[in-house]
Amino acid sequence: MQETLNSWQAVHDEVLRRIHARDWAPGDLIPNETDLAAEFGCARATVNRALRTLAENGVLDRRRKAGTRVALHPISKAILDIPVIRHEIEQRGQTYGYVLLQQKLAVPQMQIQLAMHLAANTKLLHVKAVHMADNAPYVIEDRWINQNSVSGANSIDFSIISANEWLLSHAPYTHGDITFSAVAADAHKSELLAAQPGDALFEMHRTTWDHDIVITTVCLSYAPGHKMKTTL
Amino acid sequence: MQETLNSWQAVHDEVLRRIHARDWAPGDLIPNETDLAAEFGCARATVNRALRTLAENGVLDRRRKAGTRVALHPISKAILDIPVIRHEIEQRGQTYGYVLLQQKLAVPQMQIQLAMHLAANTKLLHVKAVHMADNAPYVIEDRWINQNSVSGANSIDFSIISANEWLLSHAPYTHGDITFSAVAADAHKSELLAAQPGDALFEMHRTTWDHDIVITTVCLSYAPGHKMKTTL
Repeated sequence: MQETLNSWQAVHDEVLRRIHARDWAPGDLIPNETDLAAEFGCARATVNRALRTLAENGVLDRRRKAGTRVALHPISKAILDIPVIRHEIEQRGQTYGYVLLQQKLAVPQMQIQLAMHLAANTKLLHVKAVHMADNAPYVIEDRWINQNSVSGANSIDFSIISANEWLLSHAPYTHGDITFSAVAADAHKSELLAAQPGDALFEMHRTTWDHDIVITTVCLSYAPGHKMKTTL
Repeated sequence: MQETLNSWQAVHDEVLRRIHARDWAPGDLIPNETDLAAEFGCARATVNRALRTLAENGVLDRRRKAGTRVALHPISKAILDIPVIRHEIEQRGQTYGYVLLQQKLAVPQMQIQLAMHLAANTKLLHVKAVHMADNAPYVIEDRWINQNSVSGANSIDFSIISANEWLLSHAPYTHGDITFSAVAADAHKSELLAAQPGDALFEMHRTTWDHDIVITTVCLSYAPGHKMKTTL
């Protein structure tokens, strides 16, 4: 007989065990929450929390009326933490440094206008900087800020605080797009990163929005050898 | 007067609005769930779900006894979907293809042994393949499988089904580590990917575990120009 399961973690582990053991195979409908709660001797809310977590992790497929099935095509999910760059460097135990290269109003190239869904010829605030770890270049921040949606951005001196850090506490966003890629360093990037032209760079492009108003788009180009880590 | 909020999403949006408007500033203690439920005219469980989601997204900082505060250093979180490679390619509307290059028992190099926490000289199953999208190389899968922990792996013909796909449905894992990076293509990888030596490649290294037993470690090297996308 099944022992009583007291925590949602215990229910989570037992459900996962049955799926791993293929007692419940991919595509199978599993018992409903009421029956599982009775079997496990716990509250229905406890079962609900466990199943919800498994669904968020892509192990189960929950449909409002059709019940809960073991996912046919499990999609692994990983959560990426994207901290302020200064915190990222300090958490590595390194000393943070920062050099502002440029802060000016300009009309961005077409590709940026498209990413930000803005009309041609809209002037934006262009901020370019290098973040340093232990005096070595860590990442180039090449950013465009929609000054019309971020109040106060025009009067900030981004040589004192990075746009990366200032925006996060002054212009929160509701959602955003992120793209990761690998690119070869051009002459300009390799010079800023103390790298060789052609070196493979890890890049993150990110555009954030406050509802339907674009806040900012940024390209972060990391020095060669950068690794972004997470867990499954 | 506050309108009644009927769903956890509505509570979530209202709390986020107050944080964006800085009615509740970084570091501020926010009202407890009971008071918020009374204010919003909803169940405490509804408030709980909303606050839990905001905490998971790094917007709030919840402490069991000390209450809930607006996060001082908000960490953005992005969820990465990591599907089976065949599904990834088919979802792009491309035709999937697959070429097995190698399947044999061997002792991996030191770096792999360390990633898998295995004793030196342990023989593992080495599977190497190229996944194709519309007949062009898409990604190299260079994988080591702990044959002692994955029953049946030794008798599978990985020219018929990729190890990537077979493992996901036959050797589920409890957790894993992922590292993303950019590397320059060496002669071997560039040949397999129809690329030039030195091209910047996006790579994912992933090691998965079933509790404390290692299942597999894989290096995925994507053809030049690959982009991994997600949302915030």
